[in-house]
Amino acid sequence: MKKPFIHDDFILQSEAAKRLYSDYSKDEPIIDYHCHLPPQEIAEDKNFNNLTNIWLDGDHYKWRAMRTCGVDEKYITGSASDKEKFMVWAETVPKTLKNPLYHWTHMELKNPFGITEQLLDGKSAEKVWDKCNEMLQLPEFSTRGLLKRNNVKVVATTDDPTDTLEYHQQLMEEKVDEFIMVPTFRPDRGMEIENGDEWRNWVQKLSEVSGVNISSFDDFLEALRQRHDFFDEMGCRASDHGTDRPYSDDFTGKEIAVIFKKTLDGQSPSEEEVRKFKSAFLYHCGVMDEEKGWVYQLHVGAIRNNNSRMMKQLGRDTGFDSIGDFELALPLSHLLNRLDAQDNLPKVVLYNSNPRDNELMATMIGNFQDGSVAGKLQHGPPWWFLDQKDGIEAHIESLSNMGVLSEFIGMTTDSRSFLSYPRHEYYRRVLCNVLGSDMEKGLLPPDFDLVGNMAKDISFENANTFFDFKAD
Amino acid sequence: MKKPFIHDDFILQSEAAKRLYSDYSKDEPIIDYHCHLPPQEIAEDKNFNNLTNIWLDGDHYKWRAMRTCGVDEKYITGSASDKEKFMVWAETVPKTLKNPLYHWTHMELKNPFGITEQLLDGKSAEKVWDKCNEMLQLPEFSTRGLLKRNNVKVVATTDDPTDTLEYHQQLMEEKVDEFIMVPTFRPDRGMEIENGDEWRNWVQKLSEVSGVNISSFDDFLEALRQRHDFFDEMGCRASDHGTDRPYSDDFTGKEIAVIFKKTLDGQSPSEEEVRKFKSAFLYHCGVMDEEKGWVYQLHVGAIRNNNSRMMKQLGRDTGFDSIGDFELALPLSHLLNRLDAQDNLPKVVLYNSNPRDNELMATMIGNFQDGSVAGKLQHGPPWWFLDQKDGIEAHIESLSNMGVLSEFIGMTTDSRSFLSYPRHEYYRRVLCNVLGSDMEKGLLPPDFDLVGNMAKDISFENANTFFDFKAD
Amino acid sequence: MKKPFIHDDFILQSEAAKRLYSDYSKDEPIIDYHCHLPPQEIAEDKNFNNLTNIWLDGDHYKWRAMRTCGVDEKYITGSASDKEKFMVWAETVPKTLKNPLYHWTHMELKNPFGITEQLLDGKSAEKVWDKCNEMLQLPEFSTRGLLKRNNVKVVATTDDPTDTLEYHQQLMEEKVDEFIMVPTFRPDRGMEIENGDEWRNWVQKLSEVSGVNISSFDDFLEALRQRHDFFDEMGCRASDHGTDRPYSDDFTGKEIAVIFKKTLDGQSPSEEEVRKFKSAFLYHCGVMDEEKGWVYQLHVGAIRNNNSRMMKQLGRDTGFDSIGDFELALPLSHLLNRLDAQDNLPKVVLYNSNPRDNELMATMIGNFQDGSVAGKLQHGPPWWFLDQKDGIEAHIESLSNMGVLSEFIGMTTDSRSFLSYPRHEYYRRVLCNVLGSDMEKGLLPPDFDLVGNMAKDISFENANTFFDFKAD
Repeated sequence: MKKPFIHDDFILQSEAAKRLYSDYSKDEPIIDYHCHLPPQEIAEDKNFNNLTNIWLDGDHYKWRAMRTCGVDEKYITGSASDKEKFMVWAETVPKTLKNPLYHWTHMELKNPFGITEQLLDGKSAEKVWDKCNEMLQLPEFSTRGLLKRNNVKVVATTDDPTDTLEYHQQLMEEKVDEFIMVPTFRPDRGMEIENGDEWRNWVQKLSEVSGVNISSFDDFLEALRQRHDFFDEMGCRASDHGTDRPYSDDFTGKEIAVIFKKTLDGQSPSEEEVRKFKSAFLYHCGVMDEEKGWVYQLHVGAIRNNNSRMMKQLGRDTGFDSIGDFELALPLSHLLNRLDAQDNLPKVVLYNSNPRDNELMATMIGNFQDGSVAGKLQHGPPWWFLDQKDGIEAHIESLSNMGVLSEFIGMTTDSRSFLSYPRHEYYRRVLCNVLGSDMEKGLLPPDFDLVGNMAKDISFENANTFFDFKAD
Repeated sequence: MKKPFIHDDFILQSEAAKRLYSDYSKDEPIIDYHCHLPPQEIAEDKNFNNLTNIWLDGDHYKWRAMRTCGVDEKYITGSASDKEKFMVWAETVPKTLKNPLYHWTHMELKNPFGITEQLLDGKSAEKVWDKCNEMLQLPEFSTRGLLKRNNVKVVATTDDPTDTLEYHQQLMEEKVDEFIMVPTFRPDRGMEIENGDEWRNWVQKLSEVSGVNISSFDDFLEALRQRHDFFDEMGCRASDHGTDRPYSDDFTGKEIAVIFKKTLDGQSPSEEEVRKFKSAFLYHCGVMDEEKGWVYQLHVGAIRNNNSRMMKQLGRDTGFDSIGDFELALPLSHLLNRLDAQDNLPKVVLYNSNPRDNELMATMIGNFQDGSVAGKLQHGPPWWFLDQKDGIEAHIESLSNMGVLSEFIGMTTDSRSFLSYPRHEYYRRVLCNVLGSDMEKGLLPPDFDLVGNMAKDISFENANTFFDFKAD
Repeated sequence: MKKPFIHDDFILQSEAAKRLYSDYSKDEPIIDYHCHLPPQEIAEDKNFNNLTNIWLDGDHYKWRAMRTCGVDEKYITGSASDKEKFMVWAETVPKTLKNPLYHWTHMELKNPFGITEQLLDGKSAEKVWDKCNEMLQLPEFSTRGLLKRNNVKVVATTDDPTDTLEYHQQLMEEKVDEFIMVPTFRPDRGMEIENGDEWRNWVQKLSEVSGVNISSFDDFLEALRQRHDFFDEMGCRASDHGTDRPYSDDFTGKEIAVIFKKTLDGQSPSEEEVRKFKSAFLYHCGVMDEEKGWVYQLHVGAIRNNNSRMMKQLGRDTGFDSIGDFELALPLSHLLNRLDAQDNLPKVVLYNSNPRDNELMATMIGNFQDGSVAGKLQHGPPWWFLDQKDGIEAHIESLSNMGVLSEFIGMTTDSRSFLSYPRHEYYRRVLCNVLGSDMEKGLLPPDFDLVGNMAKDISFENANTFFDFKAD
């Protein structure tokens, strides 16, 4: 190859697209408002031992692809050595052609490793392994080094309300200049009342960390609010909720009190009671968020842990989840309306798992825009299975057709890996390619400042303002 | 800009597309077989005071966009002056880039106002306001003037069965040459039996206007049929039904008689009874339509009035509706089969709210095509949130892949505004662009008459024949 | 026309696409792993009387199109002569522009008839009729002649477990060199316990053909397994199941025994019992398939025989079926997990009826890939209403975005007609066009062997390996 696969104009198919990207989007800093990076690794400014540790460990996208290609579990999550695992992954890469992994892999080899001359496969694997491992020992390849290199201004981690946030505290006290790390309030474990002892243990832990003795739903809410206050002090600007359905059954305070008490006492709630409890839980979280001006994020519609054999073997988040087909429209409408009707509707981001619901989501947010905040409700960026070029394009098209694209808060990595920051570059290239293509077709006016400033705002400032991060 | 944004070849990306549009589609007259224009304003040949009155009042698409952009309700539906409202809208326009409003806005400034040299924004607003308001006082900018300018041959308004149709009558007696205005029978209020007094008041009104004393479901049907007859005399060629789901529960005449009576007497029907009543209602409307050779239109799947706070403040149709995700396949199949099995299936147009159901709809109509009328069942054109370029293209592709595009009845404005006629131009440009693109790729034969006459028929004649409007 | 409509580069829009097609895909043999060709006609090496017999008889795609275009049933399935029927079809063809029928029609006139100079319409019909009928009398236009001409190596027919497979046996004994014909185990009639006497008659027939006296569910399974064994001996490598929903309710052996017995004894099972029985049936079929290393195919989500009037008149499979909108995610997950949890999960192919579920399917298969076989679970190729260019492209994009395209088993005709083999050419052209387009855009590396070998494997070898056909 003369020209590297990942070159300056990657994805940018028109002159207008290239100009939009280079002049308006490329140099904007990054706000990663939703990710799963481990706070400890940032606080400790960790360096990784080798490419498998930073690139394969915990990456269930790659694991799924390997399983699909007939790779034995030993080389995925099993007993093989780090190097063996990497070699097998490298041999799998050519089979992932046309999967986003193929793009991401080579974008991540380019940034930060500067590898552009060769494609990853069994033949090039050894050389890539050696070169990357060497670089990973350098100070600028530490976790913070990687954040700086990618011009990341905000990292919003995802944290359990029972978390002490000690690493956030440590970093806060350090007064780091280049970026801020803030927590996100993710109380899923408290909502999952169907989980029996697992749930009761969580409530116990919440009681301990909050210092609130929990024997009623009111106590439970008080303890949650106490943590909510604490998260707020630690810079938190959003909650996040991962749920299969947007629960919004009718409920009364009395009903919830009974359901909570009986479950705390060791009984199993009925299916209907579970739905009611979750409905109340999601509602009260929204109320708290609105009080503090936080953003209320809902990730709905995935089905998780489908493979019970592998769930027993490996636990959650190991690559056995998929896209669901739940009813969304009326439940979401009821949930948001219940909050709005009482003047308790916070800023909201709705993320859908199934792309067939993009248009539903893009119109749902319009039902509750009230003029108080530009883009008060957001159709969140493509999530999980949808964060590739096609998914991004589909989201841009549905949001712009049925909502207002210029108010959109842009991409997030949603990632567990410090090598995922090129996803922002990926998003921006796709966005500018879409806009540039429209300009060349005359579907957008040939006014680069008009169109380019929209791309610029979506790349950085809209999210900064929306979450009120005050990054510069 | 040297070339205006909306220029002669707008949307037309190939030479074949340009030729198809200019030679076969552009000059065809317009049949607007489904719209919400106020008959009175046509009968009275009204001129509008200013651009806000004709362009913003009642346009909930624009209202939603303004709310999303953080505009206070005062400037949308509130106490601000017409000029203030316009100025705020003009400032909002640049934020709607890539939303169809951006296209429509500039197409409507070109036709009828001839404004092509500038894009609408805060800077150009004053000049546009003055120029348009001046033109709006001219006789050729009256409602009828605008219809003539757009070569509209048929306007089918949407009317309640209790309406006197006095304005239709007035226009009929006037013997207008250029176009006909016909009513459409839209009895939603009679179907909404869950609405208590609102429904009972409607039944009372129906009784008065029909002269039928209504104390049973049979009386109710007789009164409806009386109005159906009257609408038919007034040139009506279609009914229309707006409903969340296509109700088609099993029911018996006896059950419906009981449900009707108890509700008329002030009781509340159960959810099951509501579904049964609606199922019977939709069925009987189909039977009546078939008897008269009318077209039976079903607009299904939207969820309406989601925001109860704003519903109280502003009422229906103010921008708080969105796309639903109801089950459609079996219910629609049952409804149509029930009519077909008794030889009572009229010509049908099915409109879906959620684009994910395009293929379902395109194949559903195939189940009941019986060779008696070409295109007897139609997958209606993109509706509400779907009437932009992407939505139109998706509809064309699914209908042509799974049905027969050449029998399609084409676009309708579905609009409340006299400035919406460029929507037909918009549709035709998109249609010709799709067909021209296929020709240039060799996916359609390079035979302009073959392909062009299909575009021509879709632009005008198919709808004219299907509804039997006898326009020339 | 100077260039024929169906020319060498049909569908191939880029130089890369042309090269991929001609160098890697075009000459690969065909494996038609799922079709509905009649074994008898192959065994007897039948020649067809005329073009209507081989092209229109039984082709419900064409019938639907004719009905939609207003053709009377007499000329479709009625009393008109074969020639009359052909003439009416020919007149209908120009109206199918942009429907895949228009492409297929002209591809099938080119291969095998060599007709490329004229488009089919009322004018050319007579000449086409005469020319094709003449050729159809030639030995090389017999059923086997057509298979050879198309380089078909495997024909997997679709067969009822009660079938004697005498024609498969006959062909096996003949030791045909050029291709193999194998049966597929399709026990739908045995699953349809709601069908009363029709089901009981089937059980009776199964009892007779298997020699197993069936008075319990265990007997029933034993008889099925006996036929399963027999099919296996006859070269069968897969079962196939056509079902509206993927039944996976909870059930116990005891419950199923009771449901089976009472229905066998003439009672009607309840809806819940039907669901439980079907759930058990589908489960046990999976277990048998796994034991033999067969492939388990599920065609889910269509709604069939919607038009009861025409069902009475013409029976099944006559063009009155359409796309359904059933819940799929949790039921499919449960069904596959139930098999997997007991180590009974066979190789699986999931086919969806509604394209809105492509992404759901592409991610569902990922839940159970276990590394034991590359591509153990497959998202089946576009089926029924989806087997056109757009449907194929959508499937390729979703599968490659969310799964691993390189492991895909490629196209199948799913056809009743010996003229359908150009569908494989069609698929390959679309596949190569997609890949070539990505190469030209720089989204795939400019390495023809890398990309081309993927296309090659999808064209032939992946299916050969997956089904273990051992074709060369």
